[in-house]
Amino acid sequence: MNDEHLLQLLNEHPGQYISGEEISRRMSVSRTAIWKGINRLKEKGYEFESTSRKGYRITRRPDRFDVTALQLALNQKGSWGQPLHLFESVASTQDEARILAEQQTAEGTLVIAEEQTAGRGRQGRPFYSPSGRGIWMSLVMRPVQPLQYMSQLTLLAAVAVCRALRSTTQLDIGIKWPNDLLIDGRKVCGILIESAAEDGRVRYAIAGIGIDANLTAEDLPEHLQSIVTSLRIESGQVIDRTSIVAEVISELETLYQCYTDEGFAPIAALWESMAISIGKSIQVHNAQGSFQGIAQGLGMNGELLLRLADHQVIPIYSGDIEF
Amino acid sequence: MNDEHLLQLLNEHPGQYISGEEISRRMSVSRTAIWKGINRLKEKGYEFESTSRKGYRITRRPDRFDVTALQLALNQKGSWGQPLHLFESVASTQDEARILAEQQTAEGTLVIAEEQTAGRGRQGRPFYSPSGRGIWMSLVMRPVQPLQYMSQLTLLAAVAVCRALRSTTQLDIGIKWPNDLLIDGRKVCGILIESAAEDGRVRYAIAGIGIDANLTAEDLPEHLQSIVTSLRIESGQVIDRTSIVAEVISELETLYQCYTDEGFAPIAALWESMAISIGKSIQVHNAQGSFQGIAQGLGMNGELLLRLADHQVIPIYSGDIEF
Repeated sequence: MNDEHLLQLLNEHPGQYISGEEISRRMSVSRTAIWKGINRLKEKGYEFESTSRKGYRITRRPDRFDVTALQLALNQKGSWGQPLHLFESVASTQDEARILAEQQTAEGTLVIAEEQTAGRGRQGRPFYSPSGRGIWMSLVMRPVQPLQYMSQLTLLAAVAVCRALRSTTQLDIGIKWPNDLLIDGRKVCGILIESAAEDGRVRYAIAGIGIDANLTAEDLPEHLQSIVTSLRIESGQVIDRTSIVAEVISELETLYQCYTDEGFAPIAALWESMAISIGKSIQVHNAQGSFQGIAQGLGMNGELLLRLADHQVIPIYSGDIEF
Repeated sequence: MNDEHLLQLLNEHPGQYISGEEISRRMSVSRTAIWKGINRLKEKGYEFESTSRKGYRITRRPDRFDVTALQLALNQKGSWGQPLHLFESVASTQDEARILAEQQTAEGTLVIAEEQTAGRGRQGRPFYSPSGRGIWMSLVMRPVQPLQYMSQLTLLAAVAVCRALRSTTQLDIGIKWPNDLLIDGRKVCGILIESAAEDGRVRYAIAGIGIDANLTAEDLPEHLQSIVTSLRIESGQVIDRTSIVAEVISELETLYQCYTDEGFAPIAALWESMAISIGKSIQVHNAQGSFQGIAQGLGMNGELLLRLADHQVIPIYSGDIEF
């Protein structure tokens, strides 16, 4: 069955129902075939109302980035976000950005995909990135700071994205160390900084940012429903992804400039003010083992300072935390 | 002309001359063709004595690693150096090792090539790696230390290789910051640590080590003759590359274990004792500019501390130094 033809019929009278019977007759296909076609369109981001009596009606078309509008929005805000590489579908925007970075693309290069088929989070975990529903992007940075400060960049990215999402959505978003963004305990954004270095010199860093913008509860696989949310679910409104991209990239550029000029102290202060873990009892799991303690704040290199039961304070450089 | 056939004739009476006339007659080729064949064999590492009267005599066969002997030598010294990947020719052992590292190869994996056709040093500079003349190798490490300590690994590698070369050759080898090894001002070994990280966690580090073992003065292109030397040139002896590989990898494993157990202080002390730049007036060139000062020693993260004319001490994280 031809999905394009099905879409044509559904679009003939916008906003109105077309019966399954009529589709079946005009396309010479079975009702089951129509139902399968409708499901394929749903996967592409279409939404429908359907009743057995009236048939089908499109209630929402898939959201697609307009490259011109996006470039305009980015250019108005700063110099990052160009060159812009917009893809319909990639395995992972991180991999695309890495290839560009190895080919000496400029700082500020931005890769965005409507869909990632193998999006990944920290430690190679899968990152669910369905078509048209989120903001799946990777930004190429070429930090002048030496390698030992790269953990600070991880925190800087969390601060920048959190500020951008707060200002565009007014939602109460907090940072879970080091750089997950949560609303009411559920994740709305994941950030991953991958870097490549040669001795003490950073060749490039790629900030991977996955924002669950317009996912609906129905979009989420069952195993994610209790731990993931979206800006749309939380705000009850369809999110304009273009303005969010522009705001996030602009915040990143501004904060990175501030960091380069003023050092890490202002970034650390912002991070701590947005963090949901500070002062709380947490469990840390990393390569060194599991630790229980109170999250005290950040050390001067961006490590999390954990106060153990015996009052000893240990630095945590990587790992997962649980409340 | 068949080089294998030419070799057969040259090998008929080991140590003795065979005349150009005889070769010409038995192979039915011209004297010019023989001369070209001899030159091709020279490029493969053969050396000859030749006189117009007596003809040609092989004085040295190309040195080739024996994979069994190499594995045995490595296994006797420790657990690193396996799996061992031995290549006749690759573009760069760093690239081969990186592919293996991305495929989750174990720590200690070693890639060695007789020849690199695109060997590279720091900042993408070419590294001359002719066939059979040196030790061109890359070791995959999976450091548990957080990313901010990776500069220390660069210095650790310099210490390990310097100790191994000193003990096997008795030559007076010193370290030029951060990790070039020099004899009497000329470079005998270059080291490059390339690392890949995810937030504050190091995914892998690859130690690229290029040791000019058996290059002769004639092997060196003219532009390298004043700045590069080899263990053979300096010692006057043909170097057994297999024992050097085993000793270097063993020192790396031992020092890395010491570093993991005891921290950076003993490594820093060893480094400073072998460094040729400490206490001297040097010029540093890096992304931040050019600086003139006295090299004072190492900071606690492995940075070089440079005392400027106004007595201010600044940390140098990357760059090139000149005396």
